[in-house]
Amino acid sequence: MKSILLKIGGSVLTDKERECTLRESEIERIAGEIKGARASVVIVHGAGSFGHPQAREHNLGEDPTTRGLIETHRAVMKLNNAFIEALNRADVDAIGVHPLDFIMVEERRVTHLDCRVLESMIEFGLTPVLHGDVVIDSKRGASVISGDQILRELGIRLDVSMVGAGTNVDGVFDETGRTIPKLNRIPQQIHPSVIEDVTGEMKGKVKELIELAENGVESVIFNASMKRKVYDFLRGKDVGGTQITLQ
Amino acid sequence: MKSILLKIGGSVLTDKERECTLRESEIERIAGEIKGARASVVIVHGAGSFGHPQAREHNLGEDPTTRGLIETHRAVMKLNNAFIEALNRADVDAIGVHPLDFIMVEERRVTHLDCRVLESMIEFGLTPVLHGDVVIDSKRGASVISGDQILRELGIRLDVSMVGAGTNVDGVFDETGRTIPKLNRIPQQIHPSVIEDVTGEMKGKVKELIELAENGVESVIFNASMKRKVYDFLRGKDVGGTQITLQ
Repeated sequence: MKSILLKIGGSVLTDKERECTLRESEIERIAGEIKGARASVVIVHGAGSFGHPQAREHNLGEDPTTRGLIETHRAVMKLNNAFIEALNRADVDAIGVHPLDFIMVEERRVTHLDCRVLESMIEFGLTPVLHGDVVIDSKRGASVISGDQILRELGIRLDVSMVGAGTNVDGVFDETGRTIPKLNRIPQQIHPSVIEDVTGEMKGKVKELIELAENGVESVIFNASMKRKVYDFLRGKDVGGTQITLQ
Repeated sequence: MKSILLKIGGSVLTDKERECTLRESEIERIAGEIKGARASVVIVHGAGSFGHPQAREHNLGEDPTTRGLIETHRAVMKLNNAFIEALNRADVDAIGVHPLDFIMVEERRVTHLDCRVLESMIEFGLTPVLHGDVVIDSKRGASVISGDQILRELGIRLDVSMVGAGTNVDGVFDETGRTIPKLNRIPQQIHPSVIEDVTGEMKGKVKELIELAENGVESVIFNASMKRKVYDFLRGKDVGGTQITLQ
């Protein structure tokens, strides 16, 4: 059964400037658009201000500890719960699926991800909702895994009809600030100051999605902070943004 | 690395008579005993009054629905969170691991359970805490899986030094109400009225543990509602109760 794979960025669901702060009305709106589209969807969301501050505070990037893993996972679970509750209220049969429980990485890259449970959930009529997380790293102990890497891995492994990465900008910008309509390689012209993305997140996202395209799965980066775009994407309509394709 | 596998019954952690009611002081006490024992432990807890009422209300046994799965899972996650929080407060590096995310069953029996993440968590120094849950059933859509079945499956698959099932009674009773010290088969004499176990839970537990013994792993059913028993079990001391052994 083909599903649509939808990423919602942490910057859409949370206020990245304020630790553990939900954008509640945005969460409600997006839950409503997902319900309205009546499609078979698998959702991945970023951690936003739930997870990133904890990972930094506990220095997970350099020195992963059990306590750092626990606190970071706890924070991102809170965001996942809030999103699930909103989806359930909107009558979407969403269920949280937590990467820590079944994904493993080595040096931060996925080595172990069995999709059987996800596939069976979809068949049963559930909408699985995964998230950026901290997971077991066979070399480093524990590592943060981005929602974008999960999107790429699911895009390769699941039977998907479309892949979309909803962010809080219109797409990938060129030096002049215009949205690049189509990308088939990591462009030189992605510049943090242009896309207001100091963590280099957009570059990482494009890298994952270029590699996904190399595996035969195209995707689109679009503005999920703009009303109706999530709905339009799920209905197969044009949402502008940047298409990631090898053509 | 060898670990101790410890089940804590839902009747120990919750008031089974009152929906979603924690026994908070018992949870604190048990968290403290687990911390005190300083052992490498994998914990499984029952659902108690979190999960059983929802599973009944949604008729999961007869007609599993997505909404029934969602509500039942949500309830048992609440209990798991409360137990994890208590363990973390007691300075145990506990992390919730949710069966729904990685276990599948067929006609209510486990067909799919990969222990690699659990093994790596233990090696990293975490204490995984699993629970009775509702999981995907490849034949029925969804089924409830008991903590006891999970205990059995983990006992077979993990490298364990001891297996204990802590309940709120002293062990398995004979017709006269005396604790049977050793069992090597499912006894005729288990009687609901004697052990105050109307759901036949003790019989199910004994069945799982006899099958575990047939796989070469002995276990003990003991009274976790009695102070120090969890600590004593984890320290390898005699806790009375009923040993399940093929000898």
